Parts: sequence; C-alpha cells; structure tokens
Amino acid sequence: MNDIGKLIQKLNTFRDERDWRQFHNPKDLAISLSLEAAELLEDFQWKTSEQAIEENLENIKEELADVMIYALMLSHDLDLDVKEMILEKMQKNAQKYPVEKSRGRKLKYDNL
Amino acid sequence: MNDIGKLIQKLNTFRDERDWRQFHNPKDLAISLSLEAAELLEDFQWKTSEQAIEENLENIKEELADVMIYALMLSHDLDLDVKEMILEKMQKNAQKYPVEKSRGRKLKYDNL
Amino acid sequence: MNDIGKLIQKLNTFRDERDWRQFHNPKDLAISLSLEAAELLEDFQWKTSEQAIEENLENIKEELADVMIYALMLSHDLDLDVKEMILEKMQKNAQKYPVEKSRGRKLKYDNL
Amino acid sequence: MNDIGKLIQKLNTFRDERDWRQFHNPKDLAISLSLEAAELLEDFQWKTSEQAIEENLENIKEELADVMIYALMLSHDLDLDVKEMILEKMQKNAQKYPVEKSRGRKLKYDNL
Repeated sequence: MNDIGKLIQKLNTFRDERDWRQFHNPKDLAISLSLEAAELLEDFQWKTSEQAIEENLENIKEELADVMIYALMLSHDLDLDVKEMILEKMQKNAQKYPVEKSRGRKLKYDNL
Repeated sequence: MNDIGKLIQKLNTFRDERDWRQFHNPKDLAISLSLEAAELLEDFQWKTSEQAIEENLENIKEELADVMIYALMLSHDLDLDVKEMILEKMQKNAQKYPVEKSRGRKLKYDNL
Repeated sequence: MNDIGKLIQKLNTFRDERDWRQFHNPKDLAISLSLEAAELLEDFQWKTSEQAIEENLENIKEELADVMIYALMLSHDLDLDVKEMILEKMQKNAQKYPVEKSRGRKLKYDNL
Repeated sequence: MNDIGKLIQKLNTFRDERDWRQFHNPKDLAISLSLEAAELLEDFQWKTSEQAIEENLENIKEELADVMIYALMLSHDLDLDVKEMILEKMQKNAQKYPVEKSRGRKLKYDNL
C-alpha cells in the first residue's frame, strides 16, 4: 500500500475510534475543508509572505495539514483515488495551459 | 521516492515548463487554495450531499484535485514534509480529542 | 446623510483613531472579508440551520456584522456607492434570472 | 424606512417573484456568502491591489454587491437588525482594541 493509502487508513482509524463517521457527510466535509483553508489564509492576513512565514510557520504547517486531512477523508468517502485524480487534473490543466502559450504568463486559460 | 514525492515532482515540472514559480509566492498560493476550496463547496450549494454527488461528482473530483495540487505545491515551497506534517497533526488532534471524551460527540475540544 | 453613509463614517473614525488605514489595502480587506465569511460559516459546521441558530445565534450575529463591516470599508476605499452598487447588481440579476424562467428553480442562469 | 430597510425590501420582492425563499435556508445562505467572498478575492489572486483595481474594478464591484446581498438576506431571515448589529459589534471591537493600545498596530487583541 502506498503512502497516501496508509495516511487514509490512519485517518479512518482515528475517525472510527471516535465514532465520528456519522457526522462526516460530504457537504460538511467540504465546508470544513473550506474553513481550514481560511484558517491557513488567516496566517497571511495583513502580512507579506515573508512576514507570515517568519511569524507563523508552525501554525501554517498545522493548518495545511488540516486541509490535507479533510481532503483525504472527503476523497476516501467519495471513493476517489487521490493519486489518479491529481494526475488526471494535471493532464487537463496541461491541455488548458499549453506550454508555449502560457509560459511566464498568469492569464486565465480563457484569456490565453 | 514515495507517491506524494512523485506527485510533487510532477507538479514542479509542470510549473517549471510554464515558468510559473515566479508567481507562486506562499500568500497567493494560500489564497488560491482557499478559492479552490470554495469552488469545491459550490458543488454542494443549495444541495444535500446526495444531490451534489449525483449531479456534480465529476466536478467535485476536479476541484478536490485542485485543492490537493495547491496544498502540495505550498507544502513543497515551504519545505514541509507532507506525510510527516499530517502525522504530527493527527497526533496533536489525538491529544485534543481523547477517545473516551470525544466518542460520538462533535463538540469542539474546548467544550469537551 | 443616509444610514449606510453614517455607518461608513463611524467605521472611518474607528480606523482613524487607531491609525489603521495604513494596513487596509484592498487585497487584505478582501482576504479579511473572506475570513469573516468563513467564521460565519463555521457556526453552521456539522449542524442543521436550526441547530446553528439555536446554539450560535449570538455569534452568527457578530460574524455577520464583521462581514458587513469589511464590505463597507472595502466599498468606501474603492469609492463605490454601496446602495447604487447593490441596485445595479439586482438589475443585472433580474436579467440573468427572468421571473418566468427561474420561478421555483435553483438552476444557475447558464442552465436555465 | 431607512436605506438598508428599503434594500432588504427590494431583495425580498426579488426572491418572492421567483419563489426562491424555499431554498434560502440560513446554512446555504452562509455558504453562498462565503462563495461570493471567494469570488471577490479571486479578483485579487496573483495581483497587487493596484493591478486588481486596474484590471477588475467592474467585477470587484459586482462581487462586493453579491456579498452585501447575501449578508442582507441572511440578516433579514434571522430577524437581525443590520444597523444595530454593526453598531453593537463596533462597540465590542472598541473594547477589544482600545485606542491607546492599538494605535498603528495590527496585532490581534489577544496579543495587545
């Protein structure tokens, strides 16, 4: 079993020990993911990237972990294969943003 | 090299081919992560979990992939080890939510 | 001077007394608005609307106020007239969602 | 009737003409508010405030209006008086951030 699979297994054990899967409906997991992303962003509020890293790196690390934890649990509950899902999306992004058209440019694909 | 490491490597190749790392400062990556989490949540807006899955599973999959992609890139750029970071946070969560106190309860740790 | 104008005036006095306008660039105000919206949403996490209202109404009220406060400050700083801006958007929405096509339907306008 | 009251009245007419209040439960309104705040923030993604304003002011205006629209509808549905709620929160903020301690400082109140 690969890394991601092992992490998901541990997360499921964590949830089952606490009998928490009953609360983990996909809609509330998506809400939770978005809240953790906001807590991560809060570490950068009123700051440059440099200031945020200097002052908040420990907390950034924890919030980023929470984001990943919810993303992994939601993927698992929806029967999505995390690795495959990311590779497929990267392929789609590669088509949306062809190298020659998008090099050095931050335009949205519909403006390329 | 493990799964997560290989995905990060591919993401870096993707960024380098497009010369995009110049835009990828941590603050804007944290903003982007939060925007992708919102796009994921949008698939659940005005819907039950069941309706959202029935109508939007393909898009949910793509948005969830985008969330993971930004989380992986940001972790890499901050020199954070994804697997270790998740395991550490799970350990911290295990202390915040002891099994016996939190079983079957969705209270926040400060209300346990 | 109308209600909204008076509120904005009070908010500006509040900021000026603390010399905070130096921090209030529009990008960080937009981040802050999004963070307050997440804090509001947190009151509904793992809950039905009814449970959230019963348990968290006082906090919902405060977070909603924070959302409005940032929205008013950002509007002011961008020289946008709040009332006019809302009326214009409602007119645009009325065209996007004609009464006869959208009555009782929650579809996005591009699916009508 | 004041400005805010008139705007809320118009929003209610808009909703009733489309028979949309049946969808407007507070939890989904809070989700929607958070999604609109993300769309506003998207106008600032990968940009300085100045670039965002130069390139996206029209869209910023629309997203800010959407944020206000959801905030007003949610306030109304929860029987909250918008003006009073903002004034109360400002009073609370004034206590959390006393002028002499917070002048020119962007620290959170618990670090003052």
